[in-house]
Amino acid sequence: MVGGGRGAFIGAVHRIAAAMDQQIDLVCGAFSSDPEKSKASGADLFLPPDRCYGTFEEMIKSEAKLPKDQRMDFVAIVTPNHMHFPPAKMALENGFHVLSDKPATFNLKQAKQLRDLVKKTGLLYALTHNYTGYPLVKQARDMVRDGKLGKIRKVIVEYPQGWLATRLEIQGQKQAFWRTDPKQSGAGGCVGDIGTHAENLAEYITGLQIKELAADITTFVKGRVLDDDVNVLLRFDNGAKGILHASQISIGEENNLNIRVHGEKGSLEWHQREPNTLIAKWPDQPVQLLRTAQGYLEAFANIYKNFANHIRAFEAKRKLPADDIALDYPRIEDGVRGMAFIEAVVASSKANAKWTKLDTK
Amino acid sequence: MVGGGRGAFIGAVHRIAAAMDQQIDLVCGAFSSDPEKSKASGADLFLPPDRCYGTFEEMIKSEAKLPKDQRMDFVAIVTPNHMHFPPAKMALENGFHVLSDKPATFNLKQAKQLRDLVKKTGLLYALTHNYTGYPLVKQARDMVRDGKLGKIRKVIVEYPQGWLATRLEIQGQKQAFWRTDPKQSGAGGCVGDIGTHAENLAEYITGLQIKELAADITTFVKGRVLDDDVNVLLRFDNGAKGILHASQISIGEENNLNIRVHGEKGSLEWHQREPNTLIAKWPDQPVQLLRTAQGYLEAFANIYKNFANHIRAFEAKRKLPADDIALDYPRIEDGVRGMAFIEAVVASSKANAKWTKLDTK
Amino acid sequence: MVGGGRGAFIGAVHRIAAAMDQQIDLVCGAFSSDPEKSKASGADLFLPPDRCYGTFEEMIKSEAKLPKDQRMDFVAIVTPNHMHFPPAKMALENGFHVLSDKPATFNLKQAKQLRDLVKKTGLLYALTHNYTGYPLVKQARDMVRDGKLGKIRKVIVEYPQGWLATRLEIQGQKQAFWRTDPKQSGAGGCVGDIGTHAENLAEYITGLQIKELAADITTFVKGRVLDDDVNVLLRFDNGAKGILHASQISIGEENNLNIRVHGEKGSLEWHQREPNTLIAKWPDQPVQLLRTAQGYLEAFANIYKNFANHIRAFEAKRKLPADDIALDYPRIEDGVRGMAFIEAVVASSKANAKWTKLDTK
Amino acid sequence: MVGGGRGAFIGAVHRIAAAMDQQIDLVCGAFSSDPEKSKASGADLFLPPDRCYGTFEEMIKSEAKLPKDQRMDFVAIVTPNHMHFPPAKMALENGFHVLSDKPATFNLKQAKQLRDLVKKTGLLYALTHNYTGYPLVKQARDMVRDGKLGKIRKVIVEYPQGWLATRLEIQGQKQAFWRTDPKQSGAGGCVGDIGTHAENLAEYITGLQIKELAADITTFVKGRVLDDDVNVLLRFDNGAKGILHASQISIGEENNLNIRVHGEKGSLEWHQREPNTLIAKWPDQPVQLLRTAQGYLEAFANIYKNFANHIRAFEAKRKLPADDIALDYPRIEDGVRGMAFIEAVVASSKANAKWTKLDTK
Repeated sequence: MVGGGRGAFIGAVHRIAAAMDQQIDLVCGAFSSDPEKSKASGADLFLPPDRCYGTFEEMIKSEAKLPKDQRMDFVAIVTPNHMHFPPAKMALENGFHVLSDKPATFNLKQAKQLRDLVKKTGLLYALTHNYTGYPLVKQARDMVRDGKLGKIRKVIVEYPQGWLATRLEIQGQKQAFWRTDPKQSGAGGCVGDIGTHAENLAEYITGLQIKELAADITTFVKGRVLDDDVNVLLRFDNGAKGILHASQISIGEENNLNIRVHGEKGSLEWHQREPNTLIAKWPDQPVQLLRTAQGYLEAFANIYKNFANHIRAFEAKRKLPADDIALDYPRIEDGVRGMAFIEAVVASSKANAKWTKLDTK
Repeated sequence: MVGGGRGAFIGAVHRIAAAMDQQIDLVCGAFSSDPEKSKASGADLFLPPDRCYGTFEEMIKSEAKLPKDQRMDFVAIVTPNHMHFPPAKMALENGFHVLSDKPATFNLKQAKQLRDLVKKTGLLYALTHNYTGYPLVKQARDMVRDGKLGKIRKVIVEYPQGWLATRLEIQGQKQAFWRTDPKQSGAGGCVGDIGTHAENLAEYITGLQIKELAADITTFVKGRVLDDDVNVLLRFDNGAKGILHASQISIGEENNLNIRVHGEKGSLEWHQREPNTLIAKWPDQPVQLLRTAQGYLEAFANIYKNFANHIRAFEAKRKLPADDIALDYPRIEDGVRGMAFIEAVVASSKANAKWTKLDTK
Repeated sequence: MVGGGRGAFIGAVHRIAAAMDQQIDLVCGAFSSDPEKSKASGADLFLPPDRCYGTFEEMIKSEAKLPKDQRMDFVAIVTPNHMHFPPAKMALENGFHVLSDKPATFNLKQAKQLRDLVKKTGLLYALTHNYTGYPLVKQARDMVRDGKLGKIRKVIVEYPQGWLATRLEIQGQKQAFWRTDPKQSGAGGCVGDIGTHAENLAEYITGLQIKELAADITTFVKGRVLDDDVNVLLRFDNGAKGILHASQISIGEENNLNIRVHGEKGSLEWHQREPNTLIAKWPDQPVQLLRTAQGYLEAFANIYKNFANHIRAFEAKRKLPADDIALDYPRIEDGVRGMAFIEAVVASSKANAKWTKLDTK
Repeated sequence: MVGGGRGAFIGAVHRIAAAMDQQIDLVCGAFSSDPEKSKASGADLFLPPDRCYGTFEEMIKSEAKLPKDQRMDFVAIVTPNHMHFPPAKMALENGFHVLSDKPATFNLKQAKQLRDLVKKTGLLYALTHNYTGYPLVKQARDMVRDGKLGKIRKVIVEYPQGWLATRLEIQGQKQAFWRTDPKQSGAGGCVGDIGTHAENLAEYITGLQIKELAADITTFVKGRVLDDDVNVLLRFDNGAKGILHASQISIGEENNLNIRVHGEKGSLEWHQREPNTLIAKWPDQPVQLLRTAQGYLEAFANIYKNFANHIRAFEAKRKLPADDIALDYPRIEDGVRGMAFIEAVVASSKANAKWTKLDTK
């Protein structure tokens, strides 16, 4: 694991998700850019001291020297955005599979480089757009793909939060600090942090791609540099229209990712706050509530589980059928689309909400 | 009453709303453009035959000749959009107050004429943007006005419906027929029918005005002429941003008017489907549910009640204080803004979502 | 109308409900036990002074002397419980149909007398258990009757309120005063006021009858005489089990009437707070939300409408088919069951929750 | 771990919960009464073969012989009810702390024996009434304890499920089989399986004890021996009244544990289905929604975490302050109360809902 030391948030979530099915063991880590802190964080996790590394470079080099059955199987990257690309690149170049937190990289250019590298090395790469791990999100995707909704006409996806409604980043809150720092986060603030989740969810469920968008992003909190509010009109490749909005200044909103998909034959609605219910609406019939039972951590764990199973098949040179569930995790292509989305949003908004295409070539 | 004969929908709602507080009696009507049907509709309502008129012209002329204590006190107009202006104009010119269904007129030009006429005659005019009649909508407005939310930053207002997801208008459905006919509805389909409600609600609660907008409207159902889906980015006069979307092709959605208002100090959320709950969110405090108890009809009736009380004060030459509740009903100025909104949306969308100002001068 | 003068609550609801379909006109009334107040209340409603009576006796006698096409068609009784029986009895004896607020009478003995009188006179009698007027309550009843749920196994019905959590009755609140006064309310406080609604709803939807019950009622507020909290175990005539609880000391609860019915094949759930949704649950299928659109007043009005239509058919000597909707309103038999329920609850609780049968013979 | 082999349900939940905070490692197990299956289950979990035992007796004996720093720290028991007591007893007698799934034992007599043994050995014992692990359940308890609700008047706790609405136990469903078998489950079916959770939750939050109860339990599914539906009237030691109902034949209900607590000053409401919201209601104030963020697994893990921390302090002979969170987990006293509850319910119901006291002496 790269990142996720003391004081980090998402690192612990990754570790629990990885551990949940008891198929993945944390064996080493470079948990902090501060070597001392990295080692201390490793000790908290009962790792042997010789596998708590001071830097990710050291970790990748050392692990690569270990015999194959002793070294780590893949690298999990849970650092701030600007530190996604360097370890991912180095890991791939040294023969390790990679699982990375989103967004894939600091900017679109890096994402495309990473795409090329994944292709060239033939190694596996997973991106934790964890919301697609929910069973009912997968079911929604299946229902759309099976034509249950007919041609998709309209998509409304939203991700409001309120925790950055004040300038938390100058009050010593680490999570707020790097997320609002363009040097660590990249060109997008709110749009990169949570807007990409909304974008990924909309494309995952509908199987459509955003063709162009018109965006109006805002920085409401004085002194902040990056956007903290995002409003976007969407046009999909099949002619569907959409709305995407995200915010980190909507006081009282927690992690309120929601999506509504309307087709010619029916509609679907899913709310992250009640993730085990999928609402289906049909003409002249009762509304249906489809139910399952999995929480946030289990959904997150699904990404790890599928990725681990794919690695096993890969290492055993076992070919998986195209519909094998182990193949169902976000890839570098999703990462490229995410970065293209961020850059298109920022560019469109700068051009006064001019329609802008996603550059994913 | 003009309109609202057999087979009409909103006319009956108006009659119940007017009757609810037992302060307003229906005394005459021109219920249909077909004189026979008009008279039959009047008989259903136990009106005396001599006050069931064949046309609105006949009604206004005849009533004007009656002694003041016997003739109607005001005219309620519940016809399709293209027939809002002519009876409103004639009624005002003959000394009658007017209450009209929304939108105020067929186009912006007529709305401005009506504004001038109201000013010139000094008579009263009410527009049934009925959602502003809900007690908790009024409370939301008061909370914003009193500064409870601080400066408003973001507004999300939405009005999805699904009943026009297929081409209902060629299947003999009267309500669908006139709403999708540009000769009866005007330049806007969905935007005129329900988009204006959303626009009015957002401006009513926030006390802000939409300064400019970028719109992307669509006609999804083949063969239909007017829009059936509306997505709009909003910019308010205080710098707040917003999203307005409305739809009549979102299958399974009923009458799902919702609004979220986010300010610097807190947020409000109101859903027409549960109109007696107003959700207030604050930093570092529990979410609050404010409750009251009034249904759709009572809210609609509030418009009538306030208007009737204003008429009584007006006729008695009684001056009402500025904060008298009787003054709280939508006016011709709201009508002008509504028509300006429709025309701006249509123009912006035609210009590929170009930012467009509302022309209300 | 008997009762419902200035300061009353349910009288206004009755008047709106009656007026809603514009088929029923209020023509006279004895609105208060105070003749002065009665006349003033009538004037508020624009009634002619000669039909605003000082007492119900005067009203019934005077109206009975009017020609048949001028006198009132039926008497609506909206007084406190102890004044339900006397005007109902006198009205029936003078040839008038009766519509009464619930519970039917002050005690079971009166209810049985009234049942005999209705039978003897052949006149019509309606009881406003208004919750059975909701379209989806009717649909629930139909689904049970049609066997969709299979044999009913369990019923949970609850009606918590919180408005009497303190001793409101000694603070000049008229509604609280008579409801907690055994001379006006009868043997049951909470059980008579709202427990009977729950009992009626459970029997209406399931088509079953409560065979016996074990009750534990409590008076929590010091100084109060009648019960303010009710917990009951139910056994139905088909072997189904049930729970009924009601309360007026559950702080924060408004008018939270809920029912869940579980059968061998499926379950139904209905909440008065969201009356336009009926939730249906089936084995191995999505939950269904059945929807309609009617508010509290429309539901209340359905009782009046059906009763009015039955009166018309009755007066015209028109025989209605057994499934005519006009016959669907609560009768004196429901009133007798309600009174038997109250008395059984009180008796069972006094006997330390001893199982007690309902005496409806 | 004792139990939790292939095909088991709750064992995996325990393992995830234990692993979640990365403070507890699974080191050995007797996962099945079938030694072969036990060893295979251990291999699935990457345990060394020599610590996958064929029986719990073998496990406890062998582990006791290991040096203190190598042997297991405590035994987790996740078997059907009839196998809770024997391993718990033997573990305590051999110096191991015990964590057990609920109910504590097969019958009340065993529970009391265990209580004596815990006292005698001075070892620690935890019972996974996991719902008390939710942060907002703890907050509810704190609010009651701090007097925010005033004196408690009424408690409504319910736990409906629907999965045993048909005779699933004869269709090869292992979970249904042992739960409906009196030899494995004990005297209570539904009441033991989920009724005790409801009982524990009500006592935990209110800090009150059920003094007596009147119960009506039923076996609806033909051929089944144990109860599958439970209705109980409760009386608490402070005079509060209550209702407890649980069911496994309520089709469509999942895991719908709910509680409402009404006091003299306010009310609380918590729903397991939305466990991160606690609803607080006050007189003349908006309803409050208190929010946190923890799922089922995290809540379950809290029991393990607190227990592990208590063991650490215990082993280090470190005295914990009385309000240390590590002490907040259910104990053998809760287990005794649970068994007393089950036996009181069964006895009361047999005696036709006679009021019956809980025997916990």
